[in-house]
Amino acid sequence: MAMEEFRVLNDNSLREYIKATPSLASKLGGNQLDNLEIKEVGDGNLNFVYIVISPSGSLVIKQAVPYVRLIGESWPMSKERSYFEATALRRQHGLSPKHVPEVYHFDRTMSLIGMQYIEPPHIIVRKGLIAGVEYPLLAEHMSEFMANTLFYTSLLYLTTTQHKSAVAEFCANVELCRLTEQVVFSDPYKISEFNRWTSPYLDSDAEAVRNDNILKLEVTELKSKFCEKKQALIHGDLHTSSVMVTHDSTQIIDPEFAFYGPMGFDIGAFIGNLFLAYFAQDGHADKENDRKAYKGWILGTIADTWNLLHKKFTCLWDVHKDGPGEAFLDDIYNDVELWELVKQKYMIDLFHDSLGFAAAKMIRRIVGVAHVEDFESISDPVKRADCERQALDFAKMLMKKRRNFNNIADVILAAQ
Amino acid sequence: MAMEEFRVLNDNSLREYIKATPSLASKLGGNQLDNLEIKEVGDGNLNFVYIVISPSGSLVIKQAVPYVRLIGESWPMSKERSYFEATALRRQHGLSPKHVPEVYHFDRTMSLIGMQYIEPPHIIVRKGLIAGVEYPLLAEHMSEFMANTLFYTSLLYLTTTQHKSAVAEFCANVELCRLTEQVVFSDPYKISEFNRWTSPYLDSDAEAVRNDNILKLEVTELKSKFCEKKQALIHGDLHTSSVMVTHDSTQIIDPEFAFYGPMGFDIGAFIGNLFLAYFAQDGHADKENDRKAYKGWILGTIADTWNLLHKKFTCLWDVHKDGPGEAFLDDIYNDVELWELVKQKYMIDLFHDSLGFAAAKMIRRIVGVAHVEDFESISDPVKRADCERQALDFAKMLMKKRRNFNNIADVILAAQ
Repeated sequence: MAMEEFRVLNDNSLREYIKATPSLASKLGGNQLDNLEIKEVGDGNLNFVYIVISPSGSLVIKQAVPYVRLIGESWPMSKERSYFEATALRRQHGLSPKHVPEVYHFDRTMSLIGMQYIEPPHIIVRKGLIAGVEYPLLAEHMSEFMANTLFYTSLLYLTTTQHKSAVAEFCANVELCRLTEQVVFSDPYKISEFNRWTSPYLDSDAEAVRNDNILKLEVTELKSKFCEKKQALIHGDLHTSSVMVTHDSTQIIDPEFAFYGPMGFDIGAFIGNLFLAYFAQDGHADKENDRKAYKGWILGTIADTWNLLHKKFTCLWDVHKDGPGEAFLDDIYNDVELWELVKQKYMIDLFHDSLGFAAAKMIRRIVGVAHVEDFESISDPVKRADCERQALDFAKMLMKKRRNFNNIADVILAAQ
Repeated sequence: MAMEEFRVLNDNSLREYIKATPSLASKLGGNQLDNLEIKEVGDGNLNFVYIVISPSGSLVIKQAVPYVRLIGESWPMSKERSYFEATALRRQHGLSPKHVPEVYHFDRTMSLIGMQYIEPPHIIVRKGLIAGVEYPLLAEHMSEFMANTLFYTSLLYLTTTQHKSAVAEFCANVELCRLTEQVVFSDPYKISEFNRWTSPYLDSDAEAVRNDNILKLEVTELKSKFCEKKQALIHGDLHTSSVMVTHDSTQIIDPEFAFYGPMGFDIGAFIGNLFLAYFAQDGHADKENDRKAYKGWILGTIADTWNLLHKKFTCLWDVHKDGPGEAFLDDIYNDVELWELVKQKYMIDLFHDSLGFAAAKMIRRIVGVAHVEDFESISDPVKRADCERQALDFAKMLMKKRRNFNNIADVILAAQ
C-alpha cells in the first residue's frame, strides 16, 4: 500500500493502514486484525491519538495534522513536528529505555508514529498530583531520564562533530520553538489577546508582571538562553502532563518540542510544574484530607529530583571522564581539586538555569494562554486565585533571586 | 568548460579556468586574457592564493585543498571550508560593503573563490603594527564592520526562523571550529606536542598556565560558550592578519572559520591581538623610536574600537527596535528605563565575553602552536620572552578578573 500523499486518517482508514504496514500489524498479532478496537483519545491541542487493541497486542498511533487541531486549519503548524517527535522518542528510548515508549513505525509523509501503548493503570502524573496520589519512584525515574538524555546528548559525551550535526538537525523544528518563545517568554510579559488569568482577582497581579522591569530583564536572559544555548537534546515540554505513571513505572511521552537547547529548560519544566501542583493543594484540601502531608511529599519529590539528578549526572560524567566528550578534556582537568571545581561550576550554573526556567514555566501557566488543570480544577475562583497568587509570587521571587540559591533545600524552604 | 571534478590548479590551468569563466574573465577585460600576470602569494597555512592582473583589471583567486597546505596530505582538512568562506564573505560584504572584498565567483566543486583584489598599498595590519604605523581610521572601520556583521546576523535583527536556519547551515563548518577548540581552548592548558614557547625563558610560565586551576576553570567556560552559544555569524579568526589596511581603508578577509558563535570571540580576537602588538612594542623600540607614543596610539585604538562598537551596535538596535528581531520585543521593553537596562545588560555581558576571548587568544599565541609575528620578529630571545611574559601575565589576569571590569578605560589602565 503506497503512502504517497498525506491524508488525515479516521478509524476505518487507520485500520487499512495498519493491515498494510507489517511493523504495526505484527505487534497486533498479524492475523486477527479484523477485531481491532480503535479509540481516538487525543486530548492535546495538536494531534490525533489512537489507541489500537487486538486480542493479542496493542499500540498507539499518533498523527500530526498541518494545523493546530484545537483551532483548526486557520492556525497552520508544520506536521514535520512529527518527524522530530519520532526522532527524539527513538533517541530518548535508546538512552532511557525503561522510561520512554518504543517507536515501532514512523511514516514521515503521513506524519504518523506507531508506538508502544502505555497501558492502564498508567495515568498522566498531573492527574495523580491533583488527586493527591504519592509516587515513591517518581523522582528516581525522572532524574534517571533527565540525567541520561541530557548528559549523553551534550558535549560532555559527544564529539563536537556529532554535537554540531545534531544541533543542525533539530534547528529545523523551529515552529514549535517559536510557540514556546511566544507563550512562555513573551506573551505573559506584555498585553496579548491570548493571555488570561483568574479575573478580576488576579487583574492587578497580571498587570504587575507586565510592569516588573527586573522580572522582564531576567526573562530576557532566559529567552536568549532558550534561543541560543545549544547544550543538549531537550524534551522541550517536560511538564507533568508529559509524564505517565503508576506506583512503580514512569513513562515520558510527547517530545515534539524537542530541540538542542539549555538543559535547565527540561529540569525547570518538571520542577516548576511540581511547584504548581504544590501551590494548588490548598485548593483541593477538604475535611477528610487537609493535604498537608501530601504537600510535604511534593516538596520532597522536588528536592529528590534535583539531588538525584545531580548525583546521576555527575556520576555519568565521572564514568565517561575519558570518553568521546570534547568540552572537558581529561588531560586538562587532571587535578582532583580542579575536576571537582569544574563539576561544581557546571552544576551550579545548571541549577540556576533550572530555577529560572521553572519560574518562567510557572508564571506563564497563571497569566499566559495555557493554564494547568491543577488550578483549573479548583472551582471556587477566590480560592483558585489565592493559590495562583502564592505560586506567582514565589515564581517571581525565584526568577529574580535564583542566583542566590545554592541548593534545593533553600528553595523548598522559600516555598514553604 | 565543465568543472566536474576537483583538481588543484596551477598558473597554467588557472589561466584556462579564468578564460572559461565569464564572471572572472569580464573583470579582467574579456579580450586581453593572454597577458594575464598570475602570482601565487598564499602565505597562510591552508590555501593557495593567486593575484591575477590584466591590463584592464585584477582579481584574487583563492583555492582550498583537502588538506593543510603547510603540512601536506597527511593532515586532511575539508575543502568545504571554501563554501563557508564564500558564503560568509558574501553575507559580510552585504552588511559592510566598504570593509569586505566583493566575491565575483564561487565554484564549490573546485573550492575556488574569485574575488576583489585588495590593491597595494594595502598591507596586513599586523605588519603595520610591527612597523609602528598609525591608522587613524582603524577603530572606526573595525567597529563598523563588527557592529554590522554581528548585529544583523543576531536575534536582535533576525526572526528565530531565519536565525535557526543560518545556525544550521554553519554547523557544517565543524572542522575549522574543531581546530579552534584545540589550539585556542585546549592545547595551551595541557601538555601537547604542538605547543611551543620562547624556551627556556618561558618554561616555567608555560608550566604555570598548565597548572593554574582557576585559569583552566575560566577557559572551560569560554570553550563551552564557543561551542554552544549561537549568537551571531562571527568571522571566527579576526586577528590582525585578517585585516588589510591603508591610511584610509580597512578590509577584512579570510572568514573561513565563520560560524554561528559568541560575538565576543570576534571582538576579543581583534582586541587581544592589538594587546599583543602593544606588549611587543618594547621589543621593537630602538634609539630612534622608543615606541612610547605608538604604544599610546595602540591603547587608544583598543579603547576606541570597543567604545565605537558599543555606540554603533546599540544605535543599530535602537534603529531596528520595531524590526524583525524576536529576542527583544518592543512591546515588552516598552519602558524607557527598562530599554536602557536591557541594552546595558546585553552590552556588559558582551564586554565580559570579549575580554575573556581576548585573553584566550593572547595566551594561545604565547604558549600554543601558532605564534604571532609581533613577537617572532623580536630577534633577541631574552627581550622577546620579557615582552611575551608581560602579555601573558596581563592575559591571565584579564581572563580571571574580566567580570570586575565595567569599561575599557580600566582595562587599558591595567595594561599600562
